[in-house]
Amino acid sequence: MEMWIKEMQIEGAAMTYKVNETLLRKKTEFQDLAIVDTPSFGRMLVLDGIVQTTIKDEFIYHEMITHIPLFTHPNPKKVLVVGGGDGGAIREILKHPSVEKAVLCEIDGDVIEACKKYLPEISCALDDKRCEVFVGDGIKYVKDHKNEFDVIIVDSTDPFNMAEGLFGGNFYRDIFDALTEEGIFIAQTETPYFLPDTVNKVFNDAKKIFPVTKMFMAGIPTYPGGYWSFTVGSKKHDPSKVDTSKIKIQDMKYYTPELHNACFVLPQYVKDVIGEK
Amino acid sequence: MEMWIKEMQIEGAAMTYKVNETLLRKKTEFQDLAIVDTPSFGRMLVLDGIVQTTIKDEFIYHEMITHIPLFTHPNPKKVLVVGGGDGGAIREILKHPSVEKAVLCEIDGDVIEACKKYLPEISCALDDKRCEVFVGDGIKYVKDHKNEFDVIIVDSTDPFNMAEGLFGGNFYRDIFDALTEEGIFIAQTETPYFLPDTVNKVFNDAKKIFPVTKMFMAGIPTYPGGYWSFTVGSKKHDPSKVDTSKIKIQDMKYYTPELHNACFVLPQYVKDVIGEK
Repeated sequence: MEMWIKEMQIEGAAMTYKVNETLLRKKTEFQDLAIVDTPSFGRMLVLDGIVQTTIKDEFIYHEMITHIPLFTHPNPKKVLVVGGGDGGAIREILKHPSVEKAVLCEIDGDVIEACKKYLPEISCALDDKRCEVFVGDGIKYVKDHKNEFDVIIVDSTDPFNMAEGLFGGNFYRDIFDALTEEGIFIAQTETPYFLPDTVNKVFNDAKKIFPVTKMFMAGIPTYPGGYWSFTVGSKKHDPSKVDTSKIKIQDMKYYTPELHNACFVLPQYVKDVIGEK
Repeated sequence: MEMWIKEMQIEGAAMTYKVNETLLRKKTEFQDLAIVDTPSFGRMLVLDGIVQTTIKDEFIYHEMITHIPLFTHPNPKKVLVVGGGDGGAIREILKHPSVEKAVLCEIDGDVIEACKKYLPEISCALDDKRCEVFVGDGIKYVKDHKNEFDVIIVDSTDPFNMAEGLFGGNFYRDIFDALTEEGIFIAQTETPYFLPDTVNKVFNDAKKIFPVTKMFMAGIPTYPGGYWSFTVGSKKHDPSKVDTSKIKIQDMKYYTPELHNACFVLPQYVKDVIGEK
């Protein structure tokens, strides 16, 4: 007997993955959590039936959501990750020697525990002494901290159900206030191809609040459409015009200094989706 | 009853599409041809179970495989498409006023007929007076023409079975000879993520023959991994360093002059796949 999982995200289309073994399946306080082992992508974290991260392609998402803002900021010392319980963003953040503290605020402690146990390649930095793990509501955490973080990374699930509040105006205003003077915010902002209205709203919500708001794209095999958007909101520095000549990279498999600015050059249909010229 | 098709291209993973209606299914002399209507991507051409092109996302592939070489060449007059029986590349080629003749050499006449009937949005330019359709073997056609084409576009199926000869050394040598002095060749060269060995071989076969060989990427939802490579071999002009200030675009939804050079900036793992620094 073969077992396959079918990921229903797009009307009338679905990605399916053969499963070698289900390592964990648990109804947590917040969601249906699974860790499965697959022949195509190795072990995967699946939440409410949606693939969140996989051993084989996680490097793309985690490098791009981290290094773009951290190499844009001239001296990032304190970084917050909202969501991201797998620890992948924390692992990448701690590659930056300037970082003194990286806070992870994840609402679902079971995600953290599952990733620590089953996805050590991704979660390996959660026990680093520069990392502080806080289990709780990211919206409240951001509201309670003012002028504190140099970079805030919103590494969330899709904008439905409990993650809905992590996409939009009020939350982005609180993020702005939680950032320091040269602060930079980034969020994964879904697929412009399949969810144009969502991407338009999220980008323009950020644009209303941040003096500089830019979108970039990355090719991620396990996300619907394979071509994913990230939105950067910045108080001062333009993330698409970084002097990359002094960037020193470490163990990176997707990010390169040349790609840093180039990934912000968008296809026409993506520009149309967000209303940019 | 719901009908879904399952595209088996990757070991242990598959894209599936709900089908509203099968408009055509035929065993041609060369392959299993189907035109199906889907809720997710509209009508699709499917060959041997692999999605070739769809009404909704075809613009990405056809724009990028055409406009990158044609805007790199200073004055493309005569262009050859090998494969590409759907006519999408021809449609884009004929947007360039300099083009006097566009030849389509497709081995399977049934593909052309099916696309003319069921995919008119894509095949619409095949009856243009500047287009010449030749049904026959592309390898032989290229061998029989010397110093004739300014641009040759290899718009093939995947490098298995009958299309295998369209990927590699001998064919690329014949393409070089069929090109004029400033000639440019482009081919779709698969997914570096899932087929690194194939992509490495094809790129380096081209590199042995062309003075300038470059790879670029585009995000294409219906191709495995969603992030597709194209290889450009050029006798003289560097396709990644084009002066785009004078480019005039028409009805383009993916290609932009800014993207022309930026799409050649590759992620690290893709550089590693093709052995570039």
